[in-house]
Amino acid sequence: MQSLNQFTLTEAVKESFKTEEGSRLKFLLETFIEHLHDYTRETNLTHQEWMGVLNFLYDCGKISTPERHEFILLSDVLGFSALVDMINTRGGATEGSNLGPFYLDDAPVKNLGDDLATGREGVIVMAKGTVRDILGKPLAGAIIDTWQADATGTYPIQEQERGQDKYDLRGKFTTNERGEYWYTTVLPKPYTVPYDGPVGDLLRAGNRHAWRAAHLHFIIRAAGYRDITTEVFFANTDYIDNDAVFGVRKSLIAALKPVKKGQDLGVSVQRQPDAMFEFEFVLAPE
Amino acid sequence: MQSLNQFTLTEAVKESFKTEEGSRLKFLLETFIEHLHDYTRETNLTHQEWMGVLNFLYDCGKISTPERHEFILLSDVLGFSALVDMINTRGGATEGSNLGPFYLDDAPVKNLGDDLATGREGVIVMAKGTVRDILGKPLAGAIIDTWQADATGTYPIQEQERGQDKYDLRGKFTTNERGEYWYTTVLPKPYTVPYDGPVGDLLRAGNRHAWRAAHLHFIIRAAGYRDITTEVFFANTDYIDNDAVFGVRKSLIAALKPVKKGQDLGVSVQRQPDAMFEFEFVLAPE
Repeated sequence: MQSLNQFTLTEAVKESFKTEEGSRLKFLLETFIEHLHDYTRETNLTHQEWMGVLNFLYDCGKISTPERHEFILLSDVLGFSALVDMINTRGGATEGSNLGPFYLDDAPVKNLGDDLATGREGVIVMAKGTVRDILGKPLAGAIIDTWQADATGTYPIQEQERGQDKYDLRGKFTTNERGEYWYTTVLPKPYTVPYDGPVGDLLRAGNRHAWRAAHLHFIIRAAGYRDITTEVFFANTDYIDNDAVFGVRKSLIAALKPVKKGQDLGVSVQRQPDAMFEFEFVLAPE
Repeated sequence: MQSLNQFTLTEAVKESFKTEEGSRLKFLLETFIEHLHDYTRETNLTHQEWMGVLNFLYDCGKISTPERHEFILLSDVLGFSALVDMINTRGGATEGSNLGPFYLDDAPVKNLGDDLATGREGVIVMAKGTVRDILGKPLAGAIIDTWQADATGTYPIQEQERGQDKYDLRGKFTTNERGEYWYTTVLPKPYTVPYDGPVGDLLRAGNRHAWRAAHLHFIIRAAGYRDITTEVFFANTDYIDNDAVFGVRKSLIAALKPVKKGQDLGVSVQRQPDAMFEFEFVLAPE
């Protein structure tokens, strides 16, 4: 008969899982059990606190839907998502950042110079840059898959009931033979992550706000290279120093520059921009 | 502008929670963030694994109902519940063990010597013992609140659709002036924890079974003393060495002894037992 106590229990739990020796699953499970038990011992967790944690997870489950994954949101506000992005960034490549909940994999195909902001009001910006590999070689035919909020901080997909098209403010551009991309769009505004659920309660308990710094989402793909999921932010904008989900990296901040009337942009665009920024995406080989 | 990387991120997340200096909440949150981030760094968690963890939690939420708390079950099979029970056991007092999902706080009041197993078939056992404080003083008027499965490993509350009474096989006894309790009941059989959900998948991935060793549940209460929630197991029974939820402690195992016909039991009982066991409960002051 095993005589377990709070110190010997951890090994017993680890040994109860009979997973393949040396497997990734074994390592992930055992490391998790060690941290969970260490946490419990270090905090001398009470029954009430333990039940509080489990009921918090229960409540996260109850508010979740296929459109709202409260556990991803929880991961975001705890910096878990950002940490996984950081760990999985390849040396020399553009840093990764949050995918977020609004990605659609079938965004409309666009042509270089198109305007994503068709008919929308706000600050019109030109995005411009090059996709390169980590040795600096421009990548022709790379896909720039982008989506964003509008000038009120709302994604059209959130406003379908009010007649908005979910494919609006998103598109797939293909880089030209010099690896270049350019298009115009409306400058997005900051918005809050959903804070009417358990994660919102956690933010309130920690006197934290729910605001994200304004950003554009990107997934960059090129054959033979590792995809990059990232975001581009804008210098000196609100929440750039305290984004609620820790998405901002210094290397992902672009500088907006005013565009003068009649200024030579070097490329042709559908719509006259008020400002522009340049951003280079760098992909690492697969 | 903060330039966060995978090492500086952890402090930034901790600092984002503006909780009261020196508070329990601050300590619990910061220690959790440290362990979560350490885990992520130590395992170099991939995006796919990260999403797997979050979707596992999502699925646990989806299968949960007020009657089925999959997160408690998850806590049970990871030894988290057992560890909290161990940590919160007071020195000299009876060790704590799982509350489980079937407790009702309004079990019927019973008299010493009553039979909990009314009309049920199986091995009839007499439970007998004393409730004491940690100095050995018998506690008169202590409440023995007990509930259990039947001889098929089923709780009547699980079989209400088949006409069973949810208050069956449970009751509250009060110790006499010498701190003694005794009653008869049917010997419970082992049963499985629910394994048709995400936690069942986890058990299968770890080649683990879902069986609990046979047990009786108890909450012991006495004015001025700390409640004890625990279980009593039986020596040499199935799964005593590998209970699926790590509930067994050496000190919680009782020895069953046969009862001969006409044997003097020292107390009067409603029903002739086939066997008996003695168990002493020890309470620590509040």
